[in-house]
Amino acid sequence: MAHRIGKYTIKTDNRPSIVGFGSIVGIREGKGPLKNYFDTIFTDDLWGEKTFEKAEAKIQTQSLVMALERAKLVPDDIDVIFAGDLLNQCISSSFGLKGFNIPFLGQYGACSTMAQSMLLATLFTDSGLAKYSAGVTSSHFCCAERQFRFPLEYGGQRTPTAQHTVTGGGCVILSHKSVKDKPKIEYVTIGQITDLGIKDANNMGAAMAPSAALTIRHFLEDTKKKPQDFDAIITGDLGKVGSYLLIELLKRSGIDISKNHNDCGLLMFDTSKQDVHAGGSGCGCSGSVLCSLILKKMLNKEIKNILFIATGALMSPTSTQQGGSIPGISHLVNIVIE
Amino acid sequence: MAHRIGKYTIKTDNRPSIVGFGSIVGIREGKGPLKNYFDTIFTDDLWGEKTFEKAEAKIQTQSLVMALERAKLVPDDIDVIFAGDLLNQCISSSFGLKGFNIPFLGQYGACSTMAQSMLLATLFTDSGLAKYSAGVTSSHFCCAERQFRFPLEYGGQRTPTAQHTVTGGGCVILSHKSVKDKPKIEYVTIGQITDLGIKDANNMGAAMAPSAALTIRHFLEDTKKKPQDFDAIITGDLGKVGSYLLIELLKRSGIDISKNHNDCGLLMFDTSKQDVHAGGSGCGCSGSVLCSLILKKMLNKEIKNILFIATGALMSPTSTQQGGSIPGISHLVNIVIE
Repeated sequence: MAHRIGKYTIKTDNRPSIVGFGSIVGIREGKGPLKNYFDTIFTDDLWGEKTFEKAEAKIQTQSLVMALERAKLVPDDIDVIFAGDLLNQCISSSFGLKGFNIPFLGQYGACSTMAQSMLLATLFTDSGLAKYSAGVTSSHFCCAERQFRFPLEYGGQRTPTAQHTVTGGGCVILSHKSVKDKPKIEYVTIGQITDLGIKDANNMGAAMAPSAALTIRHFLEDTKKKPQDFDAIITGDLGKVGSYLLIELLKRSGIDISKNHNDCGLLMFDTSKQDVHAGGSGCGCSGSVLCSLILKKMLNKEIKNILFIATGALMSPTSTQQGGSIPGISHLVNIVIE
Repeated sequence: MAHRIGKYTIKTDNRPSIVGFGSIVGIREGKGPLKNYFDTIFTDDLWGEKTFEKAEAKIQTQSLVMALERAKLVPDDIDVIFAGDLLNQCISSSFGLKGFNIPFLGQYGACSTMAQSMLLATLFTDSGLAKYSAGVTSSHFCCAERQFRFPLEYGGQRTPTAQHTVTGGGCVILSHKSVKDKPKIEYVTIGQITDLGIKDANNMGAAMAPSAALTIRHFLEDTKKKPQDFDAIITGDLGKVGSYLLIELLKRSGIDISKNHNDCGLLMFDTSKQDVHAGGSGCGCSGSVLCSLILKKMLNKEIKNILFIATGALMSPTSTQQGGSIPGISHLVNIVIE
């Protein structure tokens, strides 16, 4: 059974394994540098559905189907599913997953949702509350644009600090026991909300970087580990601006992650060629990068011990219109393979 | 450490206790039949804030403060907080709770959030993952109206089946150990999404009743208990229509809860005198009724063994505009006191 190490970090005892995972992305993501890692790339923003929102729900459905296939499991094997997304009232998750009849606990961590849902799925399996559990998330550029920003038809210009919401999603399935040659979860760190007063909704990286710095610092303090103990420290979707700020913020605490840091928002796109400004964002960004590049490289043992820190911005258009700042949160999962 | 009893239900081993709780409501709720049970009744919809949304965030802040006071704890004692609300991107929770620096896991279960966050808080304390944990939720009539329905100024008429969103909230604090003379959690049942195709957004009771019936049936099957084993079976916010349907649906499965069923949406208001149509609704409805009437009656030992089943409708205005049905979910918590 999992137990606390310090104030923020929990160590698993049975090292639950990721026995299944699935990733799905859209057109632009499928033309990026990770194109050979994704399970499915769909080539029409609607993916055969009548609305973008229904296409996003389908991303969640199919990510779970893919993960079940890889794990050789059926829906009835999964005791609980943790899922969330960016849409108002998290409809991608409820509509995408309602058909599976799996006990469901909806999560809202904005773009930190992949880590949050995986963290809870891990703790449920490690504590014997579930034999198998799943974590799912998604985002869709076209849904996010019209919900958070402008109608697509408006063609609004964006600032250089703005990020491009990834169309995509990911799902992981955790097993209650450690399985040979599968990636395992060793530690998780629950984030706390950080708010340094950033109010620019076109600069999410700056709003989220302090929370990523805090969570990484909490993890390192709780476990007494050092950045060089890890093959890679991969943040959720800080993009160019947020990644720069994260490295600077941690340097001020005497922590240097510049050697092994990377960011899902930077890995997803070729920011020099693809028109995505400061990089990718959205729940589906870290979700699909984790469930493609990262887990496949781990299965190949190219990387064996990583920190995955998905980062979320907890504002809404309403809070921004009312002059509110942008609270950030980041949750951490330490994944290892021998 | 908690363990599974059947497919949907988990039994706690240490029977975590509710050591603190707090409830806050607005004007209309404060004129209803439960007025003497709430901790705070505010008499201005804005509660001194500039917007309704900021007032709702303050409900979460103050509910937690109240619960901490009752538990004689400080924020630093709480290892993790589970919180959610109805607002887009759950801003009441993130803005209301960001100042406490407590590790935070945002939940989205619509009006089932009180049971969902309490369920997770219970499992974390029972499994040793937290010494103390909290579950918080809220809703605000004025925020919900303008987000889900019409601007308040429009003065739209409502159908008789419509419910009135409660302005209010609640917070519970769970202790890792069983404390004498405090209410304890014995079982929790995680709900699954149910969708019988109801599309009328003015009839949430009908949309949620099947999920409440399913969760209650799962609990009774898993634990081999009967409705008469409980002093009260209290659903979240089914209102008049949903409560009638729940009782009828369960009768068809041979389960009669008509003798001891009640509903937070019916308890909150005097539906014969207060203009609330089919009753109360919103996350804050079951949240504030639990954290006032129910827990105070348990502390007085007027009721000693209850089922609390908060019910949620997982749609959004977007899904309804796109012709979607209304998926429902209900989570159950069994609370006892000796």
